[in-house]
This record gives sequence, structure tokens and C-alpha cells, in this order.
Amino acid sequence: MTQTLRLHYAPDNASLIIRLVLTEMGLPFETVLVDRTKSAQNSTTYLALNPNGLIPVLETPQGPIFETAAILLWLSERMGQMAPNPQSDERSAFLKWLFFASNTLHADLRILFYAEKYIDPSQANTLRAGIRPRLRHHLKLLDQVAQDAPDWFHAQTPSVLTYYVACMMRWMALYPHGSDRSWFTLADTPYLQRILQSLETRDATRVAITAEGLGVTPFTSPAYATPLEGSAT
Amino acid sequence: MTQTLRLHYAPDNASLIIRLVLTEMGLPFETVLVDRTKSAQNSTTYLALNPNGLIPVLETPQGPIFETAAILLWLSERMGQMAPNPQSDERSAFLKWLFFASNTLHADLRILFYAEKYIDPSQANTLRAGIRPRLRHHLKLLDQVAQDAPDWFHAQTPSVLTYYVACMMRWMALYPHGSDRSWFTLADTPYLQRILQSLETRDATRVAITAEGLGVTPFTSPAYATPLEGSAT
Repeated sequence: MTQTLRLHYAPDNASLIIRLVLTEMGLPFETVLVDRTKSAQNSTTYLALNPNGLIPVLETPQGPIFETAAILLWLSERMGQMAPNPQSDERSAFLKWLFFASNTLHADLRILFYAEKYIDPSQANTLRAGIRPRLRHHLKLLDQVAQDAPDWFHAQTPSVLTYYVACMMRWMALYPHGSDRSWFTLADTPYLQRILQSLETRDATRVAITAEGLGVTPFTSPAYATPLEGSAT
Repeated sequence: MTQTLRLHYAPDNASLIIRLVLTEMGLPFETVLVDRTKSAQNSTTYLALNPNGLIPVLETPQGPIFETAAILLWLSERMGQMAPNPQSDERSAFLKWLFFASNTLHADLRILFYAEKYIDPSQANTLRAGIRPRLRHHLKLLDQVAQDAPDWFHAQTPSVLTYYVACMMRWMALYPHGSDRSWFTLADTPYLQRILQSLETRDATRVAITAEGLGVTPFTSPAYATPLEGSAT
């Protein structure tokens, strides 16, 4: 078990959320590339870290953690940063929207990206067609939360949830690769749009742009990553 | 905002998990029936508590909380019971499996039950056919965790995750109503099976059996609920 934080990542994968948050917190960490072109996420070594074969894993002094939102919550608790602490009156609202982001928005997003893992490939596009209106609805709800601007979800100081939602919105605009983007318009969710604009001005975002080749406007007008190493898909 | 804990429930819905945990913790709470036969979960009043129209909601001194796993985590933090606390070395492992239960097992279970919300109804059974092997795989992973018997997931003292997984396994055996059950066999996951057997001996389970009409073996050999009030579907 390592005493260092070690992020197993692929460029522009869910590990990006963890990179942004680690950087925002000012924490030192190492990265280990998971080479998706060789399906390294399904190797015996990687499956020993995460039996689901999903990226990311964060190796910590408490062992390897997977599940993006679990890593986010654990980091926020350890560091006392970027989320209401367990004693706070804001904790309840933060937790319900963090779980919503994880088990509804992120879960549906996985279906959009990997529909073939859920249904016979001949029906994958039919499933995607059913998922898109759901995603739009989820974003509308999050836009209402952003309109209320609680401490843990507004355009000024980001929480772990802020980066989480922003990255998911980035991927909605990009994936699956080459697919129709017309269903997703940032202007439909103006309060989220303002958050994305604000995040693009932050140092942590600039660091991630360089590390993973994300282009100048990774949230508000994303382009496919051109990373120095590895592959997003 | 109420000072009492008030659980908005429908019999044998996800609210059952919260009822079991509140009872296990010895917490007093009120219940409010959500009448699914009248789609009360989509009423204006209910949507003000949970804009997703999903059951449960727990009203708390910190406002209404939705998302089953968020409620479970919040209760465990508030009470210092039934989960490793944020300072514990076990926290990382607990959080990753709690989020896995929520965003992978529970999310896939929702697709199995409500496939029509994800795809054109003509393709719903094709989608269900794709989901069942995924669920079997998820349970196999959880069975391995149960084999290791960490403090927060074994057959003796239940954590919030124990009840969460047990209820989801109950529903896998029952829903969608009248569907093929042959794909799901408890003996395939013997360590989980032992947990379910143990939970059936607990007072909290007996209280829930009476309150929601769950029958004598609600986890190991479930039957459809025959509640005193309300409807499961």
C-alpha cells in the first residue's frame, strides 16, 4: 500500500475529474497511464485494483479507491475541502445531489457511451435515443440547483460536485465519438453554463488542459482531446 | 422544516431500506404513505420534496433528503452508527462499495424494473435481457467483498450497506412482477446468502415485515408484499 496518492488515468476519462480536484486542492500525486488502446483496464493487474475494470482508481494510504464519486467524497473528507463537512447543515443537500450526479446522471451517461454493454448492439442507437431526453431532464434539475447557488454549487469556488458535473457536460458534447450533438445545447442550462465558464478560468483547469490535451475551452466548447500519451477511448 | 424524521414511503419500495435502518438505529420517525395507485409521487406536493418523483424522501431538520444512498450515508454520519466514520481507515473501502451499490447495482436494477423509461416499450424486454447478466456480475463482486467480511459488510452486525444490498436482492427475485426468476439464484452468491439469512433474524426486519406485509422470509425467499396500506407498484 502506497503512502503517495497515485491516480490511474486515461486522458479525458473519468480520472480527469479526480485530476482536477487533486490539483485544485493542491495535493501532490503521481499518475499511471491506463493504456486503453491495449485494454489495460481489463488486465489482471488493473482488475486487482478495480474488479469492475473502470477508470479511475486512486491508490491511497487507505488502499485503492474506485468509483469517481467515492474518491471525490473521500478526498473532500480527508482534506476538509471542496464539500460541506459531515457536521455541516449543508451536508444533506450536498449528498443528495452528489448521489444524483453519480447514480442518475453518470449512470445514464455510461449507457449513452457504452450502450452495447446494456443491450444487443443492433438496438444500441434505440437505447441512446431513449437516454438523451433523460439526460436533458437531469441537467435541467441541476440547473435549478445552480440557480439557487448553494455554497457547494455555484460559479465562484468549485466543490467536488462542480468539477464532476462540468466534466460530464463536456463528455455529453463529445461522445459517443462523431455522434449527433444537436440534442445538447449549453444555453438550455444557463446557470450551469456560467459555472462552466468560471471553471475555465481556474489554474486547476489550465493544468489539466496541458496534462491531457483538452484544448482552450474544455467545458464550454469542448474538442476531442489530443493527449501527449494514451487514448481517451 | 420539520424537527422530526418523516419518511415518505410506499410499501416494498426503496423506502424500505430507510425504514430498516432507522429501526435498526432505534430512531423514532413518522411515515407518510405515497399512494402509487394515484401516482402521488408525481404530485406537485411530492415533487417539491423530490423533483425526480422518486421514493423515498426523508424529511429531516436539514431539509428533505432524497437518493437512498445519500439518506443512508447522512444517517450513518449523524448517528455515528452502521458505517465506518469519516476518520476511519475503513472509510475508503466502504465508500467505494456504497457508490457501487448505488450507481451500478441500483442503477441497473432501475433499468430492469422500469425499462420503458429508458427505451421504446417495444424494446423493453430486449433491454432487460441485457441487464440480467450485468446484475449477476455485480452480485458476484459483492459476494467477494462479503467473503472478505469487512466490518461494514458481513453477516453479524449490519451496516447501512448490508440492508441496502439485501433489499435490492429481494427485489431482483420479485420484479418486474411475474417475470422469469430463473436467472437469479441465491446459492450463486453464498456469502451474500448468509448475510440475508442473518438479517432475517433481526428485530428491525421483523418490524418492517409487519409494517409493510413482507412475509416471513423477505430476503431469502421473498413473496410479493401484502401491505396494510398503499401499493408497491
